[in-house]
Amino acid sequence: MDRTRLEAFSDGVFAVAITLLALDLTVAGPEGHGSLADQLHVKWPAFLAYLISFFMIGIIWVNHHALVRSIIKVDRTLLFLNLVLLLFVVLIPFSTATVADYFSRHDWGTQVAMMLYGGVFLGMSAGFGTMFEWTLHGQRVYQPLPPERHWPARVRFVGGGGVYVAAILIALFSDVASFVLIAAVAVYYIFERTPASAAPDDGEQPAP
Amino acid sequence: MDRTRLEAFSDGVFAVAITLLALDLTVAGPEGHGSLADQLHVKWPAFLAYLISFFMIGIIWVNHHALVRSIIKVDRTLLFLNLVLLLFVVLIPFSTATVADYFSRHDWGTQVAMMLYGGVFLGMSAGFGTMFEWTLHGQRVYQPLPPERHWPARVRFVGGGGVYVAAILIALFSDVASFVLIAAVAVYYIFERTPASAAPDDGEQPAP
Amino acid sequence: MDRTRLEAFSDGVFAVAITLLALDLTVAGPEGHGSLADQLHVKWPAFLAYLISFFMIGIIWVNHHALVRSIIKVDRTLLFLNLVLLLFVVLIPFSTATVADYFSRHDWGTQVAMMLYGGVFLGMSAGFGTMFEWTLHGQRVYQPLPPERHWPARVRFVGGGGVYVAAILIALFSDVASFVLIAAVAVYYIFERTPASAAPDDGEQPAP
Amino acid sequence: MDRTRLEAFSDGVFAVAITLLALDLTVAGPEGHGSLADQLHVKWPAFLAYLISFFMIGIIWVNHHALVRSIIKVDRTLLFLNLVLLLFVVLIPFSTATVADYFSRHDWGTQVAMMLYGGVFLGMSAGFGTMFEWTLHGQRVYQPLPPERHWPARVRFVGGGGVYVAAILIALFSDVASFVLIAAVAVYYIFERTPASAAPDDGEQPAP
Repeated sequence: MDRTRLEAFSDGVFAVAITLLALDLTVAGPEGHGSLADQLHVKWPAFLAYLISFFMIGIIWVNHHALVRSIIKVDRTLLFLNLVLLLFVVLIPFSTATVADYFSRHDWGTQVAMMLYGGVFLGMSAGFGTMFEWTLHGQRVYQPLPPERHWPARVRFVGGGGVYVAAILIALFSDVASFVLIAAVAVYYIFERTPASAAPDDGEQPAP
Repeated sequence: MDRTRLEAFSDGVFAVAITLLALDLTVAGPEGHGSLADQLHVKWPAFLAYLISFFMIGIIWVNHHALVRSIIKVDRTLLFLNLVLLLFVVLIPFSTATVADYFSRHDWGTQVAMMLYGGVFLGMSAGFGTMFEWTLHGQRVYQPLPPERHWPARVRFVGGGGVYVAAILIALFSDVASFVLIAAVAVYYIFERTPASAAPDDGEQPAP
Repeated sequence: MDRTRLEAFSDGVFAVAITLLALDLTVAGPEGHGSLADQLHVKWPAFLAYLISFFMIGIIWVNHHALVRSIIKVDRTLLFLNLVLLLFVVLIPFSTATVADYFSRHDWGTQVAMMLYGGVFLGMSAGFGTMFEWTLHGQRVYQPLPPERHWPARVRFVGGGGVYVAAILIALFSDVASFVLIAAVAVYYIFERTPASAAPDDGEQPAP
Repeated sequence: MDRTRLEAFSDGVFAVAITLLALDLTVAGPEGHGSLADQLHVKWPAFLAYLISFFMIGIIWVNHHALVRSIIKVDRTLLFLNLVLLLFVVLIPFSTATVADYFSRHDWGTQVAMMLYGGVFLGMSAGFGTMFEWTLHGQRVYQPLPPERHWPARVRFVGGGGVYVAAILIALFSDVASFVLIAAVAVYYIFERTPASAAPDDGEQPAP
């Protein structure tokens, strides 16, 4: 089983999920409260959450791309690990819409929404980490990572997931701090070029 | 007519359908009844139904993939059989949303919803079985199944469909039992490796 | 400019449009009027319209596939003709939902809805006919239709479009008769194998 | 990293966005105000906005296609520039729906909606211009534009963006004039064949 359809199906899911993000961007229209300028102004958390989630899906797509192209042979296990990753990707429009709805309230609902938001990213990160772990065993990738680099790579993945755990815990105290932390992760991944991601042609696996 | 566009179109439909599943995952928001935690808690049947339907679509995608790649030549009949399969795949978000809406009531509506849910999976199973039957005739696949294995394979397909028939009938008596049976099918297909699916490179057709 | 991305983009639009058809299939849920069985029963025009539109999109996809693979070189004109075709394909979920909403009333609204439904299919047919006309000129396809067969092919296309014109006119008198006519067209295209479509490997263009 | 998945993902996003445009085309149905004919008549700005946005996305898809196929090697920077372009493409259904909602009012809300509409196209244009700028440096395209043609090409891009800036400013005085200007841009791009786009096989970059 080759990689083509795995990529085609995954790309389709990424593309639909990233486009559905914008479905939450609606205004009540002329019948709603206030002028359009007011309605757009009140929706700013929705635009910000849209922006962050858009780049989060974009980053995981870039990394998914790099991981899959290093794989020699797609088996049934990998297909199901990939489905688990996509399960969380597909939830992102839902968690994003929920954060957008609750953000401006700054009450317990906002904190729960932030925990949901961080939890979905944590699931996505764990799903991608499991796919990465799968590539470390057997003769599954063209240029396997040498064994002495397995643990450093794993630590980096766990570190990435740990930030989401931190964001979930921080949400218990401050929804804004939790949101800032997740936004910082997105910005970090856009600009940071880890050694592995900077040289994907060496056959190394990407950062989380 | 080659397989590429058949796969591309089908992958697109699978990808959109699996992503639209999550469209039903919305909460009423700050204006709704109860806190966000309550709203999410009340929605648990929606999350469970989402999970099961997600893996059902994922499994049929994996099997569709294996079936199509064994085909030598795509003809007009196969294109329409494939459309019949997709007709039911596209209905899955609708049947899933209906089950989610009615699940916590445990009344006649829930039972009808479960019959709809099982019925759509039955249609999908029958559609896939028909495509499989098509591969048994003529010189249509690279490594045809030997004739003595046709009937065992058909029995396995009919058995798979029979489970959905059972789920529909059980729904007349217990919606929960029907739901558990369908969930068990999904779990079974994820973990079971039938001889055929375990060795797709032998050119055999996949299990239902 | 090769055909690959024209096909990929068109397949994406076809796949999304065919899946969005089912978005109109929703029930009001436990809070709505009547039991779920009643709600599903009342929705039967929506299911029928879904079925017809699904196969209409499926048929145009099959024919689009056959047409595009016969093309030697994709130019900017073809890309825009293709966009015009897709413009009408994308409107099908809207016209289908409108017919479904008005069908059981059998009043002037139903007749307008049927005219809209037929009109969108007419536009799709005209768009595909224009792409076909484009293939008749210059050295644009691998095995051009001989000139003496141009007019018979055009007549067949115009005849196909004429059925939709008839359906629109008939809608002024009977919405049911108009709907039956359009449903008959869908059934005809599924089972009819025109000489051209029966032998696509000869490089001929497909039927409308 | 090859261009295939960049194209597949982008095509998916373009296809979903162009199809979601039509989601705003709904009528209130039998329970709404007025007959279906009246409801469709009142919606004419929505149909017009749908038409313009459809071709705007179609045009950017055609140009994106031409640009990407001239690229030798896809790197991480290009992937993120492409994401920025898609960020604005995905916003088009939202801005289109907002214009459609406010168009017939001709008040301050309409003017704000037109500024939003023009602003999203401006962002799309700037995103595409940045991708074009990226191709001018290093050995990134098969047939690089000679240095003496860099500035004329840039001027043409900035000119294209300047029209959107003009449309945004004009919206402060007349929403209709702003809408006409943006519609004129769409018509211009459909019929105008710039030297570069008329001869994409020479490896030149497309017009904005």
